[in-house]
Amino acid sequence: MIYFDSDYMAGAHPEVMKRLMDTNFEQTTGYGSDAYTANAAELIREACDAPQARVHFLVGGTQTNATVIDGILARHEGVLAAESGHINVHESGAVEATGHKVLTLPSYQGKVSADDVKNHICSFYKDDSYEHMVAPGMLYISFPTEYGTVYSLKELEDISSACHEAGIPLFIDGARLGFGLAAQGNDVTLKDIARLADVFYIGGTKVGALFGEAVVVTNPSLLRHFTPLIKQHGALLAKGRLLGLQFEALFADGLYFRIGRETVERAVRLKAAFEDHGFKAAIDSPTNQQFFTLPNPVIDRLKENVSFEMWGPRGERESTVRFVTGWSTTDEDIDRLASYLSF
Amino acid sequence: MIYFDSDYMAGAHPEVMKRLMDTNFEQTTGYGSDAYTANAAELIREACDAPQARVHFLVGGTQTNATVIDGILARHEGVLAAESGHINVHESGAVEATGHKVLTLPSYQGKVSADDVKNHICSFYKDDSYEHMVAPGMLYISFPTEYGTVYSLKELEDISSACHEAGIPLFIDGARLGFGLAAQGNDVTLKDIARLADVFYIGGTKVGALFGEAVVVTNPSLLRHFTPLIKQHGALLAKGRLLGLQFEALFADGLYFRIGRETVERAVRLKAAFEDHGFKAAIDSPTNQQFFTLPNPVIDRLKENVSFEMWGPRGERESTVRFVTGWSTTDEDIDRLASYLSF
Amino acid sequence: MIYFDSDYMAGAHPEVMKRLMDTNFEQTTGYGSDAYTANAAELIREACDAPQARVHFLVGGTQTNATVIDGILARHEGVLAAESGHINVHESGAVEATGHKVLTLPSYQGKVSADDVKNHICSFYKDDSYEHMVAPGMLYISFPTEYGTVYSLKELEDISSACHEAGIPLFIDGARLGFGLAAQGNDVTLKDIARLADVFYIGGTKVGALFGEAVVVTNPSLLRHFTPLIKQHGALLAKGRLLGLQFEALFADGLYFRIGRETVERAVRLKAAFEDHGFKAAIDSPTNQQFFTLPNPVIDRLKENVSFEMWGPRGERESTVRFVTGWSTTDEDIDRLASYLSF
Amino acid sequence: MIYFDSDYMAGAHPEVMKRLMDTNFEQTTGYGSDAYTANAAELIREACDAPQARVHFLVGGTQTNATVIDGILARHEGVLAAESGHINVHESGAVEATGHKVLTLPSYQGKVSADDVKNHICSFYKDDSYEHMVAPGMLYISFPTEYGTVYSLKELEDISSACHEAGIPLFIDGARLGFGLAAQGNDVTLKDIARLADVFYIGGTKVGALFGEAVVVTNPSLLRHFTPLIKQHGALLAKGRLLGLQFEALFADGLYFRIGRETVERAVRLKAAFEDHGFKAAIDSPTNQQFFTLPNPVIDRLKENVSFEMWGPRGERESTVRFVTGWSTTDEDIDRLASYLSF
Repeated sequence: MIYFDSDYMAGAHPEVMKRLMDTNFEQTTGYGSDAYTANAAELIREACDAPQARVHFLVGGTQTNATVIDGILARHEGVLAAESGHINVHESGAVEATGHKVLTLPSYQGKVSADDVKNHICSFYKDDSYEHMVAPGMLYISFPTEYGTVYSLKELEDISSACHEAGIPLFIDGARLGFGLAAQGNDVTLKDIARLADVFYIGGTKVGALFGEAVVVTNPSLLRHFTPLIKQHGALLAKGRLLGLQFEALFADGLYFRIGRETVERAVRLKAAFEDHGFKAAIDSPTNQQFFTLPNPVIDRLKENVSFEMWGPRGERESTVRFVTGWSTTDEDIDRLASYLSF
Repeated sequence: MIYFDSDYMAGAHPEVMKRLMDTNFEQTTGYGSDAYTANAAELIREACDAPQARVHFLVGGTQTNATVIDGILARHEGVLAAESGHINVHESGAVEATGHKVLTLPSYQGKVSADDVKNHICSFYKDDSYEHMVAPGMLYISFPTEYGTVYSLKELEDISSACHEAGIPLFIDGARLGFGLAAQGNDVTLKDIARLADVFYIGGTKVGALFGEAVVVTNPSLLRHFTPLIKQHGALLAKGRLLGLQFEALFADGLYFRIGRETVERAVRLKAAFEDHGFKAAIDSPTNQQFFTLPNPVIDRLKENVSFEMWGPRGERESTVRFVTGWSTTDEDIDRLASYLSF
Repeated sequence: MIYFDSDYMAGAHPEVMKRLMDTNFEQTTGYGSDAYTANAAELIREACDAPQARVHFLVGGTQTNATVIDGILARHEGVLAAESGHINVHESGAVEATGHKVLTLPSYQGKVSADDVKNHICSFYKDDSYEHMVAPGMLYISFPTEYGTVYSLKELEDISSACHEAGIPLFIDGARLGFGLAAQGNDVTLKDIARLADVFYIGGTKVGALFGEAVVVTNPSLLRHFTPLIKQHGALLAKGRLLGLQFEALFADGLYFRIGRETVERAVRLKAAFEDHGFKAAIDSPTNQQFFTLPNPVIDRLKENVSFEMWGPRGERESTVRFVTGWSTTDEDIDRLASYLSF
Repeated sequence: MIYFDSDYMAGAHPEVMKRLMDTNFEQTTGYGSDAYTANAAELIREACDAPQARVHFLVGGTQTNATVIDGILARHEGVLAAESGHINVHESGAVEATGHKVLTLPSYQGKVSADDVKNHICSFYKDDSYEHMVAPGMLYISFPTEYGTVYSLKELEDISSACHEAGIPLFIDGARLGFGLAAQGNDVTLKDIARLADVFYIGGTKVGALFGEAVVVTNPSLLRHFTPLIKQHGALLAKGRLLGLQFEALFADGLYFRIGRETVERAVRLKAAFEDHGFKAAIDSPTNQQFFTLPNPVIDRLKENVSFEMWGPRGERESTVRFVTGWSTTDEDIDRLASYLSF
């Protein structure tokens, strides 16, 4: 069996594991107050060209989204997000559990448009009863999106401008940031992300770490008392250095970007294999998530040897499926998959 | 420098790390739906003699406390806890952030008394304005407590009875459970805990794991929809097997209990070393946390070679300090500490 | 100037005010524990043919919605509602502030369909990742809706069945219930509402009272500890008898229904006046809210003598407006309005 | 039977009722956007000598406390209050329901001391683990307190200074403010309150209104978006002018202060009546709440003709009781009470 279900099915990249093993017997203070964590933060500030940024390490994506959003919004505000945004669909209402509404915008293959952001905010303040409605207090987008798509630099600049003209911060969920930066045709750099967002995170869980998300706060007026909030959200890891060590391994010599590139390369090969066999992609994704609409018999036969997820309900004759590559996906895995497509 | 600051200063026990390394390249489904996690749950049910129990794995203590308490209480209820309870003092208001009051009981070196529990509940329902007050909806205790003390079996049975007669569940925070079970003079077994509590957790973070707490729900009427709540609290680990693997390692052949015993043995030697040098324990703790009131000059000199925490503010002439042993504390560490006490 | 902005622009019906004046110097215990409140509850139970029902009196609609929903839902659940539902649009995120997501259904002039309810629930439980999504825990509908429309008895029975087959309660927002029951062509009685809903409320604020909403809990398994929750939500009126007295006045001899009928009759005359002058209703509403799309010059001229609300943004040539009648609207008001339409 | 249970047992002062009756048929816009409300706010600003203040009208005390506190605190902060504070004891956990801990200070007959405030804040920031604890974000006090006592001007100035030196706002619960200002020996004026507090409220419910609390925000940096928050808390009255009208009646010609004086005069006579009969006050209260410890047989005989509340549990031989005068208490009521004390 070969696995393409997700990018969090294996453990961590061997270099990450080695770092954990090498330091296992050392004793350090807890909760991220150790030197490894400080060094990881510094490496990330350098990679982002953001010397002023504060960097915090949390364990997982849902907790990071809820903690950041809860820390930014005033009580009467909600967070703008694509209808398809992870916080709106697949986080069990974690944002609402902190007391805030998710205000939805149309999703264009997972992306929002700067115009929709402007229009929402403009309509809100024009409405006579706006004080009875939930004020848009920030924008959440994901890069890449839940559909594997990425924003162009121009799109991201427009969105960032729309937010800042309206006086609301832009938060970028980078759970799969490494794969977005390595996307085919992508013209957005990590430095662009740091320059255009007010706060974002660099996902580790899906990009080679055992777990961990590095929150980068580039707007110094935000999240000034973030550590007690992280603690309150149950997101402050006792052995905090585990996060520092992993991000040190990922950023000391560019491993994070290497994993991004290699994983996307495998995805490109995977997509080509499907196309070579006459199956067109359901979404034109340039990252490590690939979507195909396949005849049900093909799906059933593939399932004998390959593990992958259905994307939505099974159709009458054909269904959409998702294939994801990860740091541990090999060229051999792709070759084997291609062989199962030939029948 | 030798370290006695806490029991979460090193990585994980080598057998735990080995298990993670051995399985690192395997691919499994996420969120704890894998076979390792199922096996760990089964091992824990057996160790608890609680075949009916549901077992869930979360990452850390604060998130576990908040998620369990939020899942049990009705909206108008609060949680009873010792004034000194971790949820009341050191979790940044995580329980209140879920909307619930911590109703405090007197603390007797960290412990509550069955009588105080009964009296609180009885007074509440006798009060004419009880509907304007926060109803006691459950009891939280820790075993061992934040002061290193443990309940006797008799005390625990009385507390459990007091709760069940009043119709409220008993929740035991076992962040350091391994050290409580191994405490000198302790007559409480893991099976007793499982029998007397409605829900409790077996702490991994402080007892040999990298991280992880195993929640054991022995009362089947509680927490029926716990997984979405764990997700909502940001406490559902994507690579969930990491938790299963670590608890498999801890419970497959009794490693958890062995770590408990060895760590407490070191603490007993540590306490003896202090007493041999004429320093009396500030609290008579039978577990891995030891408290001493030392003259300030002694503290200052020790600090040159030994790392440990102050317990409360520095006094004018003497101050209370805490020494904690962990899975990685060695006999040599104790010997060295003893040598620094001789001057 | 004559006013058609809303149905809460005047004080209370004279019979309600008389009741308050007549009892003003009496002394009674607070928080609804007085005999007037008990009598009002009994009158409502009789009018509903629901002897088992618990009746609670709150001050306003938004607080009633939030308190009821918060009291019913489990932490991982959300409330289904029409996209246009008041709780989703015009309550400043009060439901989300209690920690719960509003799960939206398509709105058909304010109404939801039983099929959409069924489909939502069915799709939810079929989704492999349903534990990462917000579970539908109850249904909220309004009668009449925010667009003045009402459900037929058949529609309401189907919706009630859809809920109960799925095991979720049906909550009916009756902020304007009196006008729905008196709607032209309506075949739903108060007894039907009480039979088909698990909990609903009888709006007083908009139907002749100074303020007040009577929550009727017909499903005895719900909201068992509602009084402390009302208090917690700041919705327990100290001089609670003010609510009891007003609902006594409204239900002692059918005043509530009389206000409903008379107010709707004025609305029917108002609608006819517009139609007589060639203006068609934008929505075919049988209740006291009437919507028209008028040329902008007509709107501007009317505004000189008549107060009413825009319904949505001003269009380029024409715009939609809302006219609302209330208990204090007179036939003379309608005549004057008609005269302003003739030019 | 004569009633001394509380100060919210009768309706409203006749001048307040007259104002409501006189305007009952008028039509005004809702939610406090009417001219009466604007005028009431202006009258209050003048009475407070606080031209910059924003004034908001809410319905009741618990909802006011929760809304103000929720609007001021950051997510990681709690509110300091006396152990005996209303928010800590008798509001069903309304503050915690908004996600915030009540941090308790010692109560000296209901009052807190400036020194305790300073010490709490100072200890907090000295604690190494302060980021794991709930930060004190504001101070809540009541004037008069739950025990009828009042702060001296000097005490209030010290408390205000302690708050402002620590950078936290002072919030004064004035549910019974009129009785505090009229207290025997009181040297604090309404203008002092407005000068020393950052936000406070003038209670109407207990001081002659049917209901209503006027929140005065004197610190312009606080509660900038208070209206949507009031709506979110279900505390925005639809017929908002009812609040404006009542406070107009109370502040147009000093009625509020007159009610305060007359009610306290009755309480002073009541206290004298008890003392004349040899019963000493349990607390030396200068306001409209009076506490006595009476032999149980005296209590039982009084209960035949007088209604009043027990204050705490019934003792073996004697018990503490509370007598409260209100706007409707007459000299004849006091005379009758005195007559029942003579036997």
